[in-house]
Amino acid sequence: MKTIAIAAPGAMGAAVGGVLAQHGARVIAALSQRSVISQQRAQAAKIVDVDEKTLCEADIILSILPPESALSWAQHMAPLLQSAPKKPLYVDCNAISPETLKQVARVIEHTGTPFADAAIIGLPPGEHNPQGPRFWFSGPHAAQLATLSDWGLRVRVMDAENGAASALKMAYAGINKGITLLTSAMLINASRVGAADALREEMQESQQALLQRMAKATPDMLPKAWRWAAEMDEIASLNQGELATDRLYQALGEICRQLAEDRQHDQQFSTLLAAFFQPEADKAG
Amino acid sequence: MKTIAIAAPGAMGAAVGGVLAQHGARVIAALSQRSVISQQRAQAAKIVDVDEKTLCEADIILSILPPESALSWAQHMAPLLQSAPKKPLYVDCNAISPETLKQVARVIEHTGTPFADAAIIGLPPGEHNPQGPRFWFSGPHAAQLATLSDWGLRVRVMDAENGAASALKMAYAGINKGITLLTSAMLINASRVGAADALREEMQESQQALLQRMAKATPDMLPKAWRWAAEMDEIASLNQGELATDRLYQALGEICRQLAEDRQHDQQFSTLLAAFFQPEADKAG
Repeated sequence: MKTIAIAAPGAMGAAVGGVLAQHGARVIAALSQRSVISQQRAQAAKIVDVDEKTLCEADIILSILPPESALSWAQHMAPLLQSAPKKPLYVDCNAISPETLKQVARVIEHTGTPFADAAIIGLPPGEHNPQGPRFWFSGPHAAQLATLSDWGLRVRVMDAENGAASALKMAYAGINKGITLLTSAMLINASRVGAADALREEMQESQQALLQRMAKATPDMLPKAWRWAAEMDEIASLNQGELATDRLYQALGEICRQLAEDRQHDQQFSTLLAAFFQPEADKAG
Repeated sequence: MKTIAIAAPGAMGAAVGGVLAQHGARVIAALSQRSVISQQRAQAAKIVDVDEKTLCEADIILSILPPESALSWAQHMAPLLQSAPKKPLYVDCNAISPETLKQVARVIEHTGTPFADAAIIGLPPGEHNPQGPRFWFSGPHAAQLATLSDWGLRVRVMDAENGAASALKMAYAGINKGITLLTSAMLINASRVGAADALREEMQESQQALLQRMAKATPDMLPKAWRWAAEMDEIASLNQGELATDRLYQALGEICRQLAEDRQHDQQFSTLLAAFFQPEADKAG
């Protein structure tokens, strides 16, 4: 029986663990330090509580964390991995830049533990995404992870080094979230000078697919703008200075912070965006 | 008979003049200083050559110029308009920011000539756009321009001040061109670390409409990157500092310049983009 350790059973980690367990894997996590909600979620997903040292006995460790914890958790686990007699394959699945990924890889590989890079693209498996997200793996040990498809995951193996899966995730998020932010900023600018109705009508005529995409993506983005800011900062570091992508994503990160601030205070930006997408509601009110 | 003056019979101006002439308007332009190509194009469109002073006798002057000429042409025409006994309606149709538009408006209105703001959205009328582009008008004199629909133009009148049509044009271009540039930059970044095939496959699965849009828009953009750079700089000035849109479009302008430079020199960026959209051609070559 295959044993897979999950760090940590958040919304994505628990749902992924649940799929693996349903398909017959033994799924473990260290839950003693976790919130009651996380413990209940893990229990519901048939994830077995173990101590941290036991995580190292798994065949595979999937690190699925808030991006800012990816490196610190690797550093925390390093001594345990160092002293483990049989090393698991450590897979970093987090939304971090290739630079950060390489730091994590160095920490883990230094303990003699094999390492792979992964990108999870899509929503957690469940009601809103029955097929589940796609797992992309890169690095010298990526090929072994193809077997995870036997345990219910949608797996793609990249013929590329560590860092490539992280770059994929960054580029994909950079495109999709970047479009939402850039478009929202332009809608706000147009609305402030009385051009909202015209821009909506023009887009209805000549950019219908994009307008529909925005009508869904913009309201979804606003409550997450703070979290997106950190992600834009990370994407800014994807580029090593030859293209101005760094400045582009720094500006998008700044726009995230401005939208988040606005939402907590006078809401002028969020009001303009709401009126753009719901002109009738606006006129009725 | 309605007389409409066009400055200048470039690709857009001549095609618009041709539509007006076909619908029975008398269309005039000052051609003596223009290239032989422009003169031939004007002649083919049934545009009548007059001297610059005679332009002021038109009912309407449509300024359709490269954006950087919008203000200087207004300044050049101001003394002639000043001394004209009957003033035409001067319509600035150029892709300029609301700030620049207001400078043009001040120059023209100072001569006692009524002024309107316009945005032309879409390709010139002709083979590739049989319906023709849409003309959006704003400002206190915009309503009079509704009659241009009798002369074959697709007209929309905005209930908004001078500057609003310019802002509409900027926002629309900012969204469409911004998406193309941002996405191209991310495709280049992903391709440089071996993630191109994965990103294409992922987008084919989850972002098909966007991928199709990019496959057309990116190659179309590359030869125009120099011209787009100036437009991005203009869009950057749309914002007056409350949102970081200025920094966002400054970065996009910089990316335009980098793509244009690359295309003239080592072509590493354009080669990566070509390979992204034509992977089979790349492998065959």
